[in-house]
Amino acid sequence: MTKYRGLFHYLGTRYSGWQIQKNRPTVQEEVQKALARVTGETASVVAAGRTDSGVHARGQVVHFRLSRRQSPRRLLRAVNGVLKPDIRVMSLRRASPEFHAQKSARRKLYVYSMFCGPVLPPFDAGRVLHVRHPLDTTYMKAAAQELLGRHDFSAFAAASTGVKTRTRTLFRSSIRKHGRSLHYRVEGDGFLHHMVRNIVGTLLEIGKGKRHAEDIPALLAARDRRLAGPTAPAHGLTLMRVYY
Amino acid sequence: MTKYRGLFHYLGTRYSGWQIQKNRPTVQEEVQKALARVTGETASVVAAGRTDSGVHARGQVVHFRLSRRQSPRRLLRAVNGVLKPDIRVMSLRRASPEFHAQKSARRKLYVYSMFCGPVLPPFDAGRVLHVRHPLDTTYMKAAAQELLGRHDFSAFAAASTGVKTRTRTLFRSSIRKHGRSLHYRVEGDGFLHHMVRNIVGTLLEIGKGKRHAEDIPALLAARDRRLAGPTAPAHGLTLMRVYY
Repeated sequence: MTKYRGLFHYLGTRYSGWQIQKNRPTVQEEVQKALARVTGETASVVAAGRTDSGVHARGQVVHFRLSRRQSPRRLLRAVNGVLKPDIRVMSLRRASPEFHAQKSARRKLYVYSMFCGPVLPPFDAGRVLHVRHPLDTTYMKAAAQELLGRHDFSAFAAASTGVKTRTRTLFRSSIRKHGRSLHYRVEGDGFLHHMVRNIVGTLLEIGKGKRHAEDIPALLAARDRRLAGPTAPAHGLTLMRVYY
Repeated sequence: MTKYRGLFHYLGTRYSGWQIQKNRPTVQEEVQKALARVTGETASVVAAGRTDSGVHARGQVVHFRLSRRQSPRRLLRAVNGVLKPDIRVMSLRRASPEFHAQKSARRKLYVYSMFCGPVLPPFDAGRVLHVRHPLDTTYMKAAAQELLGRHDFSAFAAASTGVKTRTRTLFRSSIRKHGRSLHYRVEGDGFLHHMVRNIVGTLLEIGKGKRHAEDIPALLAARDRRLAGPTAPAHGLTLMRVYY
């Protein structure tokens, strides 16, 4: 068996997330079907991050194994020839047998994109959250910075998360404005389910003046999901990069 | 009757261009239907540029008249509430009776976008031309510059063009590269049918080394459409701005 490592980009709009589900279109299913069609082999494709329904990727890393040795270059071309244009293998190479797209990942970078203004330009539809309410980015920036470092992120974890520890470290947590576009960049050693979207929902409340940036430390300390803001919509979120 | 002037953005992907046609979805039809639904009036919407099938707009200007006086702000919100997200009124105001979106236009700016690389990122699909062949941008830049100024553009005009004169003036004609993205920006006092796409088809041949940049003056002088390059696909083209 030969292991392959691939970098994928996809628009999550038409898919119920990465992971295969019955009777729902998923990115994993599309990729596995394309691989099967091209190689004749049934391979299980493992992704670094199991993105939710509607979430995009510009840097998803995957691995899979094939019994027959293939030229990565030819395989990339053949798989892209079969996939719809909203999913693409951007690069592909052979990987060491130890490489595991999910378990070997050390850090991930997500970006959550927002547009602040009365009318969302059509080019941003389905890719960026439309925020009609004016936002005070000074407070959002301050709040984002309070999240940096090692914390128990229970306050921002979906109730269903069945993990041992909810302690994660954020190396980057910043808000940047370019005209009417607003980007929240967050890099961490791991993320709980819905964590980025719950953080963004809370930052938006701070930007709207419904909540104070200084309350973030207390919110983290309370570890109570009910005290944080709502889950921001999926379509503003993009998995940008996985670090190994 | 009150005249209104609107700025529209749209993704041309799902439409057979701006102008109404029988049994085909067009941007003009969608806009007129939305206006009729919101105001109860049948208005003819005139655009600055009748973009072709698949061509996008980030700066289309239109005018229309309504017998009942409306608040432009409320009208904008109501029309956007009815339109699909791929067409948006970005701004709307009352216009003087003399204003004519097409006839009053003095200049237009178009951008043609290309991506050079083996795999087109999904975020660019349908919005940018995918060029697999490497391009020499130095020659493309030189060729673009040869087109500046006042010329008879018959060499780049669709055969069907039934206009009096094919002389146009280009104030800007430039190629810029940002990483793997390539943009051709062209601003002129008017454009013949398919003119920008025919210019881009020719520039691409120059970038691929199939044609020389120095041949542009002779090509213009010959005024023969058959001597220029093919028409580049519509989906790379965007009407960016109309100047009055």
